Amino acid sequence: MTQIDSLRIDENRLWQSLMALAQIGATPKGGVCRIALTDEDKAGRDQVVQWFRDAGLQVRVDEVGNVFGRRPGTDPQARAVATGSHIDTQPTGGKFDGNYGVLAGLEVVRTLNSHGIQTVAPLEVAFWMNEEGTRFTPVMMGSGAFAGIFGADHIRSQQDGAGITVGDELARIGYLGDVACGDVPGGAFAAYFEAHIEQGPVLEAYDKPIGIVSGALGQQWYDVTVTGMDAHAGPTPMDLRHDAMLAAARMVDAVNRIALEQAPHGRGTVGHLQVLPNSRNVIPGQVKFSVDFRNLSQTGLDAMDAAMRAEFAQLAAQCQCQVEITQVVRFAPCIFHPDCVASVRGAAETLGYDHMDVVSGAGHDAVYVHSVAPTAMIFVPCKDGISHNEIEDAKSEHLAAGCNVLLHAMLAHAGVA
Amino acid sequence: MTQIDSLRIDENRLWQSLMALAQIGATPKGGVCRIALTDEDKAGRDQVVQWFRDAGLQVRVDEVGNVFGRRPGTDPQARAVATGSHIDTQPTGGKFDGNYGVLAGLEVVRTLNSHGIQTVAPLEVAFWMNEEGTRFTPVMMGSGAFAGIFGADHIRSQQDGAGITVGDELARIGYLGDVACGDVPGGAFAAYFEAHIEQGPVLEAYDKPIGIVSGALGQQWYDVTVTGMDAHAGPTPMDLRHDAMLAAARMVDAVNRIALEQAPHGRGTVGHLQVLPNSRNVIPGQVKFSVDFRNLSQTGLDAMDAAMRAEFAQLAAQCQCQVEITQVVRFAPCIFHPDCVASVRGAAETLGYDHMDVVSGAGHDAVYVHSVAPTAMIFVPCKDGISHNEIEDAKSEHLAAGCNVLLHAMLAHAGVA
Repeated sequence: MTQIDSLRIDENRLWQSLMALAQIGATPKGGVCRIALTDEDKAGRDQVVQWFRDAGLQVRVDEVGNVFGRRPGTDPQARAVATGSHIDTQPTGGKFDGNYGVLAGLEVVRTLNSHGIQTVAPLEVAFWMNEEGTRFTPVMMGSGAFAGIFGADHIRSQQDGAGITVGDELARIGYLGDVACGDVPGGAFAAYFEAHIEQGPVLEAYDKPIGIVSGALGQQWYDVTVTGMDAHAGPTPMDLRHDAMLAAARMVDAVNRIALEQAPHGRGTVGHLQVLPNSRNVIPGQVKFSVDFRNLSQTGLDAMDAAMRAEFAQLAAQCQCQVEITQVVRFAPCIFHPDCVASVRGAAETLGYDHMDVVSGAGHDAVYVHSVAPTAMIFVPCKDGISHNEIEDAKSEHLAAGCNVLLHAMLAHAGVA
Repeated sequence: MTQIDSLRIDENRLWQSLMALAQIGATPKGGVCRIALTDEDKAGRDQVVQWFRDAGLQVRVDEVGNVFGRRPGTDPQARAVATGSHIDTQPTGGKFDGNYGVLAGLEVVRTLNSHGIQTVAPLEVAFWMNEEGTRFTPVMMGSGAFAGIFGADHIRSQQDGAGITVGDELARIGYLGDVACGDVPGGAFAAYFEAHIEQGPVLEAYDKPIGIVSGALGQQWYDVTVTGMDAHAGPTPMDLRHDAMLAAARMVDAVNRIALEQAPHGRGTVGHLQVLPNSRNVIPGQVKFSVDFRNLSQTGLDAMDAAMRAEFAQLAAQCQCQVEITQVVRFAPCIFHPDCVASVRGAAETLGYDHMDVVSGAGHDAVYVHSVAPTAMIFVPCKDGISHNEIEDAKSEHLAAGCNVLLHAMLAHAGVA
């Protein structure tokens, strides 16, 4: 075991692969535009599949365009230990979001190959179709179909703005496979790990190279409309106003307070707000805004929902306004599998990396895969917490550390032959 | 005096004049579009000038298009007692804003004519050029030039969006007069009264037909920019945010609190607010908004300014944001002349009308005229406090009451021969 414990991935090779893939769809500002099922996505997929084959992986493509590269183990009965992420990007995306998880998986395989190490269980590296949901909605389409959350037919019939379907585009770019969604040779994954840049500021703020991701926050999104009455700012005394802006402002403050009451995992954000008529000397008659609540437990989300409804009703009445709340999105919270989380923690400790427990605030393919296989995630810091942006950046040493954790967590589950 | 005390204007004649003038530029929704210095304004001016002449008034036009109709008194040395308002409207304006004050003045003259009553001092009825400031800014152009606040050349050189000047349009529609701004035969007005719909909800709320206007609120307007940092709503914990929306929301609440601390005349409004990037799941990195403060004293406005600067700085720091405040508009408060206010009050009491003291929250021509002549205003209720709107409405009996108050206030200053 000491010999295996000292095994490390090749930091330079991982970085070179990331930089090479980032050339496909590269933007002038240093980012990447490789939107799912476009020509750029095809070129990126072809490159990664070529690398999979060069590394000896057996490639299969499922009926919604998820791609799997398999490295057989010594036990033909053993279920695969898998990793992966996505290679599609936002229109003004970065080099690391998704791509890192896929190429870290490839680097694990290359490292085992170059050291001639066999595993008992097979290993798989996956890239999931259309995680970003930029052109075709919903987000995390491929992993959702793999997990049985969406039907394959339903996914293939989704249209972009021009009426082109996912199925048409999969066929056109040569990634409409024949493997049924969710089918894995030898049965469902024994475990699934996903390495990802954090896309948030926590690891950087605490100066930790490794985040052990215990789960992903559930999300509940709302549309809120506050209705008062337009009136001239001058002639209308304070006590005769129905000021929708004032009511909305107090609601924004309440959203923040409600989230803080659910520390440390509660999050509350008003990202979108629109004022009508939005004129300098008119008391606003209507304000519409969004609420984004996140929490690690459904109980917590339910409490936030209830607190919001009670407080908003009170604040609207205080300002002689009406309020209407519509829930528009709901993702249940996800607690990753304790065995997988323990393997990530164990690997980080064996490797001597400074680490901390974190939660994922955003959705990831791992959240869907979690429903069909024991799952955990590994986060590494990204510069200033910035992602979904062409200036997204990460340090090579952090990416290497995350990849080493991935390697050892996977080996812990797959077993060295 | 008992005979004069029983004198009343002709409610029906006043109403018919208002309805007739409202036909010029009438909109399908029942409002009026008669923007200053357009063909519609010319048609409205021609109609009112015709009525002035029919009522025996001597018409003069000054060098910025203000029009005055003079009814001589018995004392050739006496200075005129004047009234007036404006006949230009907002693009979707109503029948009463401005028009009421001009036609109430005409109705005062017609009433005196039909009863054969002579006054010692001359009377004048004015309509001021471009009060609304819709096509040419600034607002209250004509009365401002009359009062010497703006130079006549400066006003005539103002351009609309198409580059056409006020001077060009005055010449085109035949209202570029030769009387110097501020010149009145016999010297400055002895007194000026302006009757106007309230354009606010106070008189209706308190069920009073007459508002005795003690002054007009000063105004200070600001542009505020709060800068934080954009970040993903999910991955960014509450304590690592620089949430410009939260800071701005608390500032909106502070604006309201600061205004309430200056009761009863303090007013604070955030009418315009813009969020960047304004996306549902992004913590806003920047929020821009307007602040409109009004108060009846400069001391009060100064206190509001200071409180805002202190509170905004504190709230920005609280949310780890920056704030920048720029003052963009300033109108000094105006306290109307006690003798004129007393005449309005005396007339309302003599006539037995229920009344209350109010302030004007908005600007009026009277505010500028006040700087060159003892001035006061008379308000009458308008439906739901709505103005600058095609559904602007007022009751004939209230309009008549205000006109009777105007008649008796003017007679108190002009003297019956």
